[in-house]
Amino acid sequence: MNITIVGLGLIGGSMAIALKNAGFASHVIGVDNNPEHCKIAMKKGLVHEVSDLQESCAKADLIIVAIPVDKSKEVVARILNLIDEHTVVTDMGSTKKMICKHLEKHAKRHLYVAAHPIAGTEHSGPLATQRDLFNNKKTFICEKNKSSNKALTTVLKMFHCLNMSVEFMEAEEHDKHVAYISHLSHITSFALGLTVLDIEKDEKSICDMAGSGFFSTVRLAMSSPEMWTPILIENKENISYALNKYVNHLQKFKDYIDQTDKTKMFKMLKKANDIRRILDDIIS
Amino acid sequence: MNITIVGLGLIGGSMAIALKNAGFASHVIGVDNNPEHCKIAMKKGLVHEVSDLQESCAKADLIIVAIPVDKSKEVVARILNLIDEHTVVTDMGSTKKMICKHLEKHAKRHLYVAAHPIAGTEHSGPLATQRDLFNNKKTFICEKNKSSNKALTTVLKMFHCLNMSVEFMEAEEHDKHVAYISHLSHITSFALGLTVLDIEKDEKSICDMAGSGFFSTVRLAMSSPEMWTPILIENKENISYALNKYVNHLQKFKDYIDQTDKTKMFKMLKKANDIRRILDDIIS
Repeated sequence: MNITIVGLGLIGGSMAIALKNAGFASHVIGVDNNPEHCKIAMKKGLVHEVSDLQESCAKADLIIVAIPVDKSKEVVARILNLIDEHTVVTDMGSTKKMICKHLEKHAKRHLYVAAHPIAGTEHSGPLATQRDLFNNKKTFICEKNKSSNKALTTVLKMFHCLNMSVEFMEAEEHDKHVAYISHLSHITSFALGLTVLDIEKDEKSICDMAGSGFFSTVRLAMSSPEMWTPILIENKENISYALNKYVNHLQKFKDYIDQTDKTKMFKMLKKANDIRRILDDIIS
Repeated sequence: MNITIVGLGLIGGSMAIALKNAGFASHVIGVDNNPEHCKIAMKKGLVHEVSDLQESCAKADLIIVAIPVDKSKEVVARILNLIDEHTVVTDMGSTKKMICKHLEKHAKRHLYVAAHPIAGTEHSGPLATQRDLFNNKKTFICEKNKSSNKALTTVLKMFHCLNMSVEFMEAEEHDKHVAYISHLSHITSFALGLTVLDIEKDEKSICDMAGSGFFSTVRLAMSSPEMWTPILIENKENISYALNKYVNHLQKFKDYIDQTDKTKMFKMLKKANDIRRILDDIIS
């Protein structure tokens, strides 16, 4: 299958190499506005060639869009204008409501599959790509009924070949759940990074005191602002709600600490431990 | 060397097995109020025998106290009352100011070394022990001038034998830095766990949506309330200050999201990325 990947960052680049390795893609064309990304992608052997959007789309059976979510709406619409019935287009963005809304009236909406693989790291760009990034992970497909059987089957085959399991969900539901779980946890981490940089003037102490726990909670603060700014803005209602609740819980922590209330603090930590029940399910 | 370990949880139990394996301890006696912990410690071969505090202290060259910080103050004081000049006692607690203050007037203060190894996991109890938990990690020793040369040398040898590097710091400084880095990051995680349990009513969605990022930021929410309640209370001034700053940063996030202010949001995420410079130093 001839595949075009638009956006040769962590997600697009990892997808390119994984699909090549799995034999799903016989030929991969990369498209990226950043000439440096194109150079690295060629040098790392992520893609067979780089080209522009118009030319690469004409040659593709499947087009994968992996760029920031504010851009992907327009790019997918442009791609739909360019392609004919034999081509399928999908995107990998972390928000699905806005793109589905933007494309709902498009005459070729059925050639598009709205997807979101739950995979990533705090690193970005083609140098961060990992060939096993998607292996054994989950992916969401939204508004499946608006995609043609052929488009859906092609994209399902692609995810199957990456050893990913697929869940179907409506876009609005998807955006709500992903806000509460993934997007909120990124903000907690970004804010932790900012706070430590703000109050800890002695950077050597950060190095000395940072155990695996600190690293674990702060690592997402290294995530790409280019990718995360549009996600947080597109999913603003859900995230604002979650953030409000998070701040309320933190305020309780502060109150119990200020009041030296061991009993209430203990109860609250015990309640938080309940997340183990759910995480154990994931790990097992 | 005969070693007594008071508290056979993650830290005490891991120390027991590591010191036995390294040949530093020829005989290890375990002390724990919880009979179940004693049973597991014997069954797992963490200790040679279990005993009570008085008897085990009489036989020990070195006593390691690894229990919640509110208890360790009194237990170390009791131990100092029991031991003579040939025995050394140290504790592994995450706060150092209160214990140092509590013991400053004790006639045998010089036999005590205030330590804090930067090591741990979100798990607790003797079943969670890891023989390499301390390997290649840092440890802090506070108020070193109040320990005798002999006591300090013994404890330094112990940490050296665990392949840990040692930093010296005054207790007040230590508690400030550890609040800003380790204690704050535990609270961000406990609060994230509570928030997700609070707002995400569909637990299956948590499983489905939870990628490595969510797991990473929330895993400390599984930490022991028995251990963490006293830490948060003992270090309340520093933690309350840090928490206040953290909430201010979150409030900014919320404002920029609510105002759809992409420019300010982007700048803020870019600033948070600066933590990479420091974390890269740790990893390299």
